[in-house]
Amino acid sequence: MQRYFIYLAYDGTRYHGWQIQPNGISVQETLQQALSTVLRLSVAIVGAGRTDTGVHARLMVAHFDYEGELDGSRLTDKLNRLLPPDISVYRIVPVRADAHARFDALARTYHYFVHLGKDPFCRQYSCRLYNKPDFEAMNQAAARLFDYTDFTSFSKTHTDTKTNNCRIMKAEWKPLGDNQWYFEIQADRFLRNMVRAIVGTLLEVGRGKMTQEEFCRVIEGKNRCRAGESVPGNALFLVDVTYPDRCFE
Amino acid sequence: MQRYFIYLAYDGTRYHGWQIQPNGISVQETLQQALSTVLRLSVAIVGAGRTDTGVHARLMVAHFDYEGELDGSRLTDKLNRLLPPDISVYRIVPVRADAHARFDALARTYHYFVHLGKDPFCRQYSCRLYNKPDFEAMNQAAARLFDYTDFTSFSKTHTDTKTNNCRIMKAEWKPLGDNQWYFEIQADRFLRNMVRAIVGTLLEVGRGKMTQEEFCRVIEGKNRCRAGESVPGNALFLVDVTYPDRCFE
Repeated sequence: MQRYFIYLAYDGTRYHGWQIQPNGISVQETLQQALSTVLRLSVAIVGAGRTDTGVHARLMVAHFDYEGELDGSRLTDKLNRLLPPDISVYRIVPVRADAHARFDALARTYHYFVHLGKDPFCRQYSCRLYNKPDFEAMNQAAARLFDYTDFTSFSKTHTDTKTNNCRIMKAEWKPLGDNQWYFEIQADRFLRNMVRAIVGTLLEVGRGKMTQEEFCRVIEGKNRCRAGESVPGNALFLVDVTYPDRCFE
Repeated sequence: MQRYFIYLAYDGTRYHGWQIQPNGISVQETLQQALSTVLRLSVAIVGAGRTDTGVHARLMVAHFDYEGELDGSRLTDKLNRLLPPDISVYRIVPVRADAHARFDALARTYHYFVHLGKDPFCRQYSCRLYNKPDFEAMNQAAARLFDYTDFTSFSKTHTDTKTNNCRIMKAEWKPLGDNQWYFEIQADRFLRNMVRAIVGTLLEVGRGKMTQEEFCRVIEGKNRCRAGESVPGNALFLVDVTYPDRCFE
């Protein structure tokens, strides 16, 4: 068996997230069906992680196994013709037989977009704010994330994960034009709903409704109810997943 | 009577263009209705120009008259709450009584976006190309536009304009990231369908199907049938309209 990594992008608007589920169309299911059609046998794919309903990916990685040689470039073209316009495959590359899209990922990076004012072109992929938050205060609070590893406070309560430990590597708000900003966050792993809960809680800080110290208390409290409200998923993008070189040797 | 300029943006996807017409919803009609509702009397607005079905505006200017003082900032807020999410008013400013949004405009600027490859996030506002055209050749041909004033070749055949003369001030393809480019064109006026016909004809040059000389012959021929096919409207944006200072004195 040869294992392959498939690199893709998707507009999550129409999908109930990445993960296959009974009550809605998912990206994983759509991709799996297209791949199975092209390869003429049932193929299972394993993604680098889940994205929630409506969340997008500029880069998602998944793996699948296939008996025999594949022309990655031709398969990419065939899949792109078969897949709907909101899913696009970048490339398909052979990897080591034990390389795992989920367990071997060293880091995931997400971007969350916000903008001020009514904007006909931002509304689909960015969260509208009605007042400019204090981005400096939000960045000071975001830097405190590096001091912690247990992010139970920012996780959905009922999940099947064994630990809620994550190592945050980047967490910063950056400007993007005059009235738009994005929050970049990178970690070795993310809990369900974590980015949107962190952004919602940072916005509380930016609005002056929560101090830096209260932000730290929220993390230490390990109680989801004390964190800010989750922000909408349509402004969240998975933008990168990194793997060690050994996956490709 | 006091005259006002209203600066707005719109996503043209849902609209049959700017201009009011019997068989579809237009931006002008939608804006006029909202303005009339807020001001509690029937108000007519005059736009800087027409945009075709599906064409967008990052900046459109229109004028209207109102008896008495208006608080531009409050009116902007009220309109934005009433207008659908795909139309946004930037500001409303008093101008001279004889300032005319259409006849006083010195220049209009349009951008046309193209991209290579399947991209879930470009598809709504950019035209997908299947092969990379020769942008250098297209820019050489575009520079020839400065040598001409009669653009009958790039106009819809049945229009009510008296002359087909336009003065082109800018015409250049520029890169925008790795696989996206846009064509910037500025002129004192544009004929109906003109930008999309010019882009379509330049793409013929970029694909090696038309030489620089043939491009000039197309313009000199004053025959729409010899020009390239019009490109789709969803990738076209009106981005600027400029007025002389006297309008605001």
